[in-house]
Amino acid sequence: MQLLTQTLDAIRPTDRAVMAAAQKEIDYCLKPPGSLGKLEDIARQVAGITGKIHNSINKKAIVIMMADNGVYSEGIAMYPQDITRIGADFVTSGRMGGNFLANHAGADIIAVDIGIQVDVDLPKVINRKIRYGTANFLKESAMTREEAIRAIEVGIEITNSAIDQGYDLIGTGEIGIGNTTASSAVLYAFTGAHIDRVVGRGAGLTDEAFERKKEVVKRAVQLHRPDADDALDVLSKVGSLDIAGMAGTYLACAARRVPVVTDGLISNVAALVAMRLKPEVVDFMIPSHISFEPGAKLLKEITGLEPMLDMNMRLGEGTGCSLAFNIIEASLRMIEEMGTFAVIGKSRDEIGDHVMAYRGKFPR
Amino acid sequence: MQLLTQTLDAIRPTDRAVMAAAQKEIDYCLKPPGSLGKLEDIARQVAGITGKIHNSINKKAIVIMMADNGVYSEGIAMYPQDITRIGADFVTSGRMGGNFLANHAGADIIAVDIGIQVDVDLPKVINRKIRYGTANFLKESAMTREEAIRAIEVGIEITNSAIDQGYDLIGTGEIGIGNTTASSAVLYAFTGAHIDRVVGRGAGLTDEAFERKKEVVKRAVQLHRPDADDALDVLSKVGSLDIAGMAGTYLACAARRVPVVTDGLISNVAALVAMRLKPEVVDFMIPSHISFEPGAKLLKEITGLEPMLDMNMRLGEGTGCSLAFNIIEASLRMIEEMGTFAVIGKSRDEIGDHVMAYRGKFPR
Repeated sequence: MQLLTQTLDAIRPTDRAVMAAAQKEIDYCLKPPGSLGKLEDIARQVAGITGKIHNSINKKAIVIMMADNGVYSEGIAMYPQDITRIGADFVTSGRMGGNFLANHAGADIIAVDIGIQVDVDLPKVINRKIRYGTANFLKESAMTREEAIRAIEVGIEITNSAIDQGYDLIGTGEIGIGNTTASSAVLYAFTGAHIDRVVGRGAGLTDEAFERKKEVVKRAVQLHRPDADDALDVLSKVGSLDIAGMAGTYLACAARRVPVVTDGLISNVAALVAMRLKPEVVDFMIPSHISFEPGAKLLKEITGLEPMLDMNMRLGEGTGCSLAFNIIEASLRMIEEMGTFAVIGKSRDEIGDHVMAYRGKFPR
Repeated sequence: MQLLTQTLDAIRPTDRAVMAAAQKEIDYCLKPPGSLGKLEDIARQVAGITGKIHNSINKKAIVIMMADNGVYSEGIAMYPQDITRIGADFVTSGRMGGNFLANHAGADIIAVDIGIQVDVDLPKVINRKIRYGTANFLKESAMTREEAIRAIEVGIEITNSAIDQGYDLIGTGEIGIGNTTASSAVLYAFTGAHIDRVVGRGAGLTDEAFERKKEVVKRAVQLHRPDADDALDVLSKVGSLDIAGMAGTYLACAARRVPVVTDGLISNVAALVAMRLKPEVVDFMIPSHISFEPGAKLLKEITGLEPMLDMNMRLGEGTGCSLAFNIIEASLRMIEEMGTFAVIGKSRDEIGDHVMAYRGKFPR
């Protein structure tokens, strides 16, 4: 609990003064104010995160949390449960969807066994197993509160270690059969939204299994009645170990002031858990894509994170993060490389007045 | 007219058999079928364009058409008209928004003066001026039908030359004060949609100028009554030279079977012009972002092109294309680099049966 508490205490909002100074530089670039949209938003946000107007990315990583889910035994998943372990093998040998996209982005993958149901002996998988999968949350709590805290702390430790190694842009990914069911249950427990807004077909369910998944989510939340104001209660009762670990990654990035990218449904549910533990953590998050899962739209409304990519993707593994990395890096070149209104003899302050008159016409 | 006719005649649909074969390879990759969404769509489309399952991009270019618009004198733009010429200077000296994004994508910029209102003597600007800006289409036709054809043919020639030089992925961009007014007028002439669906604030208008712009578009179309079934009539009466040139780029790419990327409002209006000349050209278009301009949504509905990026951008200059280039290149690595179900002892045909059973659950 000490590491979690220290990390939460260390999180401060982004630096609004640096963001304003960065915006002034952005507005001095040769273009109508605001016309580069989210590229401007990202450049300003990264300035607020690092405290510097001029930024570039040196090392990128996708942290992939891997765990199993006891609720699998309720028949809510399409694939065999040992796909989690097989995925651990394949992702560290470079054969998964997450790999070619990370390669394309020039990002490394950090793969963590935070709770696969069997022992995994693979050289590139970091063993930080909290337990051999969660319990079936239709029968008992997925994990104890203490285990949930330790799983978050594993995420913090792994991420702190990555930041110590020089990674300055981090994405979140996961592999875990049954984890969309846990994600939907956490989202349902937090929001009480209609079941059709929180449960989707995950990696692909038959109609029958889809109905069963909805029923499982509803019954689990009815059974445990988790306290929506206590994120650790929600997480331990109906969550998963990978969600907990990813929440830790967000918190560590915020505490260490490193931008962190959200991926799909599970990643965004973990982001919501982190935000319920410390609202300021959202300042450090850059959303990537809007998942095909129905819960993604609800999460967008709650978190206010507006994804830049709409790819109909639903694979996880940090795939959306890798695509976003390139766009984030592009945004940071704007201030460095664009010409300014100095070429037509205008000062920053003259342009500033112009921008103020202009800004009102375009809602942010 | 001969080059245009030849080019239109040379356009054939994408190769459906190769696309089906590519889809089989995509489905054999280690992931739930369809879970990489638009990345799969793009990989399949590029296969259909080139006729090869295995593809990679060697050279990328953004073709930027630059021209002035006589309708500027009606007070529909915020910036001085000589910004078009200044933009020609700055974009070829690397200082515009289009530049840093093209650099980031590893793309070259091919800048064409297709109708700037003054003589432009810049070494990197290709002089293919059709006329010194269009006429004010509130008084007379923007250009003659013959000029519209020649402007399209300039786009074809420039693009054919780029393809001859080895460019195998091309994006479309433009610089031209007043060209969103021409774009809205073309869209309005084609669709007769409500004026609020076709006219936006462009690079940023006062409320008064915004109302004037709507009025100008309505009056121009009422005055000329262009034949919506005759794209050349619409283009010559209320269009612009840059739109015509961009339409030529699309047609040349389709005829030469090279993927071509759409950008914002003006680029998508040019795409619509090209589609009205030859519907099959859409097979060769890959959309990049959804512009902040209201007409972008209407264009998406008409063309069926579903952008992958939602950036709130409205700058033009091919900025969205450069961001999309990276994603297109990423998509082409999927078949090359992903592991297949062979690792779990399944043949392509076994997976094929599985995919068929699965596919019905996810609408394309």
